[in-house]
Formats: sequence, structure tokens, C-alpha cells
Amino acid sequence: MNVASAPRPGDPVESIDTPALVVDLDAMERNLQAMAEFARSHGVRLRPHAKMHKSATIARLQIAAGAAGVCVQKTSEAEALAAAGIDDIYISNEVIDAAKLARVAALAAKIRLAIAVDSVEGVERLAAAVAAAGSVIDVFVEVDVGHGRCGAPAAAAGQLAQRVVSHAPPEGGLRFAGVQAYHGAAQHLRGGEEREAASQHAASLARAAQASIGAAGIACPLVTGAGTGTFGFDVASGVWGELQAGSYLFMDRDYADNAAAPGAPRFEHALFVKSRVMSRGAAHAVVDAGHKSHALDSGPPRVWQRELAYANGGDEHGILRLHADASRASLPALGETVWLVPGHCDPTVNLHDRYVVVRGGLAGGVVAAVWPIEARGCVS
Amino acid sequence: MNVASAPRPGDPVESIDTPALVVDLDAMERNLQAMAEFARSHGVRLRPHAKMHKSATIARLQIAAGAAGVCVQKTSEAEALAAAGIDDIYISNEVIDAAKLARVAALAAKIRLAIAVDSVEGVERLAAAVAAAGSVIDVFVEVDVGHGRCGAPAAAAGQLAQRVVSHAPPEGGLRFAGVQAYHGAAQHLRGGEEREAASQHAASLARAAQASIGAAGIACPLVTGAGTGTFGFDVASGVWGELQAGSYLFMDRDYADNAAAPGAPRFEHALFVKSRVMSRGAAHAVVDAGHKSHALDSGPPRVWQRELAYANGGDEHGILRLHADASRASLPALGETVWLVPGHCDPTVNLHDRYVVVRGGLAGGVVAAVWPIEARGCVS
Repeated sequence: MNVASAPRPGDPVESIDTPALVVDLDAMERNLQAMAEFARSHGVRLRPHAKMHKSATIARLQIAAGAAGVCVQKTSEAEALAAAGIDDIYISNEVIDAAKLARVAALAAKIRLAIAVDSVEGVERLAAAVAAAGSVIDVFVEVDVGHGRCGAPAAAAGQLAQRVVSHAPPEGGLRFAGVQAYHGAAQHLRGGEEREAASQHAASLARAAQASIGAAGIACPLVTGAGTGTFGFDVASGVWGELQAGSYLFMDRDYADNAAAPGAPRFEHALFVKSRVMSRGAAHAVVDAGHKSHALDSGPPRVWQRELAYANGGDEHGILRLHADASRASLPALGETVWLVPGHCDPTVNLHDRYVVVRGGLAGGVVAAVWPIEARGCVS
Repeated sequence: MNVASAPRPGDPVESIDTPALVVDLDAMERNLQAMAEFARSHGVRLRPHAKMHKSATIARLQIAAGAAGVCVQKTSEAEALAAAGIDDIYISNEVIDAAKLARVAALAAKIRLAIAVDSVEGVERLAAAVAAAGSVIDVFVEVDVGHGRCGAPAAAAGQLAQRVVSHAPPEGGLRFAGVQAYHGAAQHLRGGEEREAASQHAASLARAAQASIGAAGIACPLVTGAGTGTFGFDVASGVWGELQAGSYLFMDRDYADNAAAPGAPRFEHALFVKSRVMSRGAAHAVVDAGHKSHALDSGPPRVWQRELAYANGGDEHGILRLHADASRASLPALGETVWLVPGHCDPTVNLHDRYVVVRGGLAGGVVAAVWPIEARGCVS
């Protein structure tokens, strides 16, 4: 735990200790409203992925703006957000371990909870856990729609849905809720055409899963999935009834590098790491934010509004050099503030204990709030 | 914060919830003793880098085995370990911000504290902070010995040492302590010969810094630096009087991939991520540990004692496939435990709230203790 004194509301942005995870609240609110309006106007539900922000405060803002609830990936994330008052959560992932399934079943007795399955054994273990707890849970059958990670083949969806339905209330505790269809790898395809093609491929597999379920004589209430990279294409297919996009709220460098999807809103960067120059060489500056302050899995951060390139300097350092074509720019001075746009929001947020939330912009703004990141570190 | 119920001493290893950060205590103790013995027998001090383990419990074990104290990289790490009882800490890094320097100066009034400088402005700001606090701090002049990150040129060491000495007690609070000479990039050169050459280059620059300081009429009490990749070569030069190696204690996959240095002990893997298969495809298995459970900056984890390759499946998933030449191996079953050796210890530890410490090995052992990671998340 970082014991440094936390900023207080009203403090100037300039006084925020570095490195710090900073939310531009004005930009975040614009993103929040743009996505809520997109879902409303397209007649689809929005259940944003809270694995991105890990914050009960933000989940409440999303639900207040019309979201149906939130998604998470981990049982411990669901527990952390439920403990902070969020009462409609979907664990869009599989749980197999009996001890963890007992926790899932216990949580389902307290809040409206959903989960994904992709195997017969997974359905049977889940059914046993909720039977023991006497609780009821919504169950989505996950189908692999192109990522090659979790998910059953589309043709197996009917058989899995039958297994779920065989444990339906009132005898059992599994309520069949539909199909989980998320193509993670498609989100980061740079070109609009290749992303559209991946979305259409995912849609065709989701339709095949619906057909398999229909052939088993079971109604499929919902297809849920989609992310910040593909939702604009996904809604055009008419397959998805619920969008799980999460990153739209903060927009990391990686998503911003995508070519825009026609008709989808353009989102602004709202998440930053504030850093400071701690050492200067003749042709480089070193900032105090390394990959312990921002995740590198999707590449390095972008230096915000400066003609500077960021090179990995290890856990605690970033090395800044001028762009080759930087005509009038100069290296920042010792002690100067440098703002970084993280390459990937979700794991960057996971490195910090709190958001420092600012109003009035990064230059000249003030601290509006400090929000805890309740589900930080919830890996299990 | 992960709210899942923590394991208790005496629990079987098999019952540990996944993903979990697990220390093989028997292996760790052998590494601890081997390094302590190496330093003793070579007549150098050992001040292990606690940025690796971030734990006051482990720092105490290292000091009990003969370490002079510990290093950290961040002010907030020093604060967290000092709050947990560690009273001899070296911040082997520069601090420039006035508010943070006030914290450094306040901490120096409570424990024996050292810090690095690499600029005249850094010396003057530090001197002002300790003067205001009325405290005394040991100061190392950092020299760039090949990494190209922080550190002054060797030829400037004398001038910086003079600045430090100009603020010596009793008038000032800066006690000149010597030269910080750490070549981070050299640690990970795979071949022994190229690592030896980098170590010799660093040694020549450290000697040049000593000469510059001597020419300024100042005695240089110590050269401190060296890491797990180079210490075997570094001691041969006779330049370093203190070793800062940290990773030797846990040995990550990246360091184990280095060719051995003649005469240096071989260390064992002592840090693991316990994971579990949560989904199975025809030709792959998915475990519940992604890069939110282990850092990827030095490459993927190694699957421990299995003929399986780990591919990044995102924040929450790892995708396992059989090695192409796996003759008799098979994919693990749904629910099966898989042990991962992290690519890089330091940032992996930073993702977890606690160590689950086991005795008797990963197979069949029991939980001996659960240790908090006090300096987890201390980025500032």
C-alpha cells in the first residue's frame, strides 16, 4: 500500500505527487454519456466491463446513466464490487474450482449474479454449488467466436444450454440467460475493414450458436459481448442485444490507434499517468514512471501533447527522447511534469490504489475527488 | 484488495486458491544462504534490493543473514518498509520534487537513510530539504556505467561529490557515501562473455568516477551496485564494495535464462504463480492466470516441469499448448493445477497483496505462513 499522503479535493493538479493515476473527469463524463446515448439510440443494453475500471464509484455512474449492471472477469472482483454496493454483476468467465464456485453461489444469494460456462463439467459443478447454497444464478453459454481462448464451439451451444436448463428453477438454480460471444483479439485490429470482417465472423458464429440452441427447443434470451474496438460494427449485425465495452470510458493509447468505425462515437483520453522528470541527460530525460506505473502489454504509453517518444526504462523509469522530426520541441527540464497516456487501461488501473479525479483539465485544474479502486488486485 | 479468504498455516498446497503468488520457502532459504555466503567469502557487503520482494519480513531475513540493510527505488517504498520496522534503507534513485524531498528528509530523521543524486540541482534541493528537517542523510553520486538512464558522466562525479561535501555535517545534512554504479541492461545479456564485458566496462567507468572524486580531494568510501546477472563478474573487478542484487532470492525465468557466471552460485526458482485450468479446447488449455497475475515485460512465464508453452491470453487468461516435441506429455485437464515461473519477479510481486509461503515443496507441501507485501503499489 502506498502510504504517501493522498491529494485532497481542491488541491491544484500541479501539487499531485508523481507517479499518479489521474482521471480527467470532464472527458470521462463525455465518454460516459456518448456511449450511453449510442446504446439507447441503437436499442441495445449496455453492461460495461468493470474489469477495466475496477471501481464501484464508476460502476454507479454507469448504472445511473442507463447501464444494466456491470461485467467482471473474476469472482473476487464481483465480491469486491458487491461489498461496495453494486448489486447486478456478470462474471463473464468460467469458474471450475469447487471452493470458488461455493463463493460464487454464496454471492448469488446476495445480489443478481450471472456467470459463463463452456463445458458440461462446468455446468454440473456450478449446478451443484448453487444447489448447496440454495441460490439462483443466470448462466450464459460462452461460444468461441474467433479468439481461440475460452468458449465452446457454436455447434455445442444447444447441448450446453440443455444442460443448463436441466438445472432450472425451481428444482435447480441455473437460469439460462443466453450466449456469451466476445472476440477479444478482434478489438485491436487496427484497420476498420479487418475489424468489421472479424465482427461479422463473430456474428455468424453467434448466430450458429443461437440456431443450435433453437434446435434444442430452447429460447435464447440474449447475446452479450462486444468491446470498444468492435461495438460499432457489432450493432450493425443485429445479433448482440447487450454490449460489454469497457475501455471507451478512459480510452487508452492502443484503442485510440484503431481506425474509427463509421457511426461509432469517438472517445477522448480520460486516463493519464502524471510523471515528473527526475534525471536529465544531454539527449534524453528520465521520468519517474516506469512499467510499475502503467502496463506495457499493449505497448508503451504516449507522451501527451509533447513531441517526445517514451522508451521503457524498467519498473521505475521512463526514457524520453525527442521525435526525429521534432522541429521546435525541447526536452523537458528536471522537475517538469510529463503526462502519459497508458497503452492499456485495465492492467494500468490494476497497478494503483486510487484514482485522483480532476476537474478543469490537466493544466490548471483541481482535484475533485479521490476514488478507491476496490477491485484492484482481485486476481482470483 | 483481494477479499478472497487467505490460506492459513497448515493448509495443504492443493487447497490454495488460484491464481496465487507462492514462495517455496525451502528454495528461498537456500538462495538466501548461498548469496550471503558468497558476499562473506568475497569480502563485500550485501545490500539486497527490496524493490524485488517489497516485504519487510524478507528484508529482516536478509539482514539476519548478514545483509547491511536494503535498497529501494521509491520514497514510498522506503516509507512502507520503515513503517514495518526496517531501519537501514538506501533509496538508490534520484528524487527531485520538493514535497517528496521533504518526506525523504523526515524519514532520514527516523532511520538510517541513504539516497542517490546525479545533478547539481538534485544535490541543492536535497540539501535544502534535510536542512529544513534538521536530519542527516548518506548520499551516493550516481554514475551512468552503461545503461544510459540516470547517472552523471563519470568525469562529473568529482564535481558532484564536492557539492555534496559542501553540505556536510555539522553545518549541512549530506554525508558523502560513495558512488552508485548499477548497469541495469547488463544484467540480462544472455551470454557470459557479453555480460562479463559489460561488467568490465561498468567497472572502468566506476574507477573513472573514483578517480574524479579523488582528484577533487575527496575520499570515496564505497562503490555500490551490481545485480543478479553480473555480481559474479563484478566482484572479480574489485571495484564494488557492496552488492545490490535482489532477484537471486526468487530467480525468475529471465535470469535463469542467462548463461551461468563462473564461480557464482546457481540459484533455484523460489517464486511461482499457482494457476488452474478453467477451460479446455481440443489442442489448448486455458489457465486462470494472465498478465494481471504475472508481469510480461521480460516475456511470458515458463510452465514448471511440464512440456507446455504459455501464450499470453490477456489480463486474466493464459493459453497452454504442448511443445512441438512433447512426445509423451498431454494437455492438463479441466481443474488441474499448473505452476508458472514468472518472467520477471519484481513487477509480478507488485501485482499481489501477499505471499503464500509453503514448506515441503509445491507437490504435497503445506502453507507455512502468509506474508504481507508492504511495499506493493508504492510507485511514488
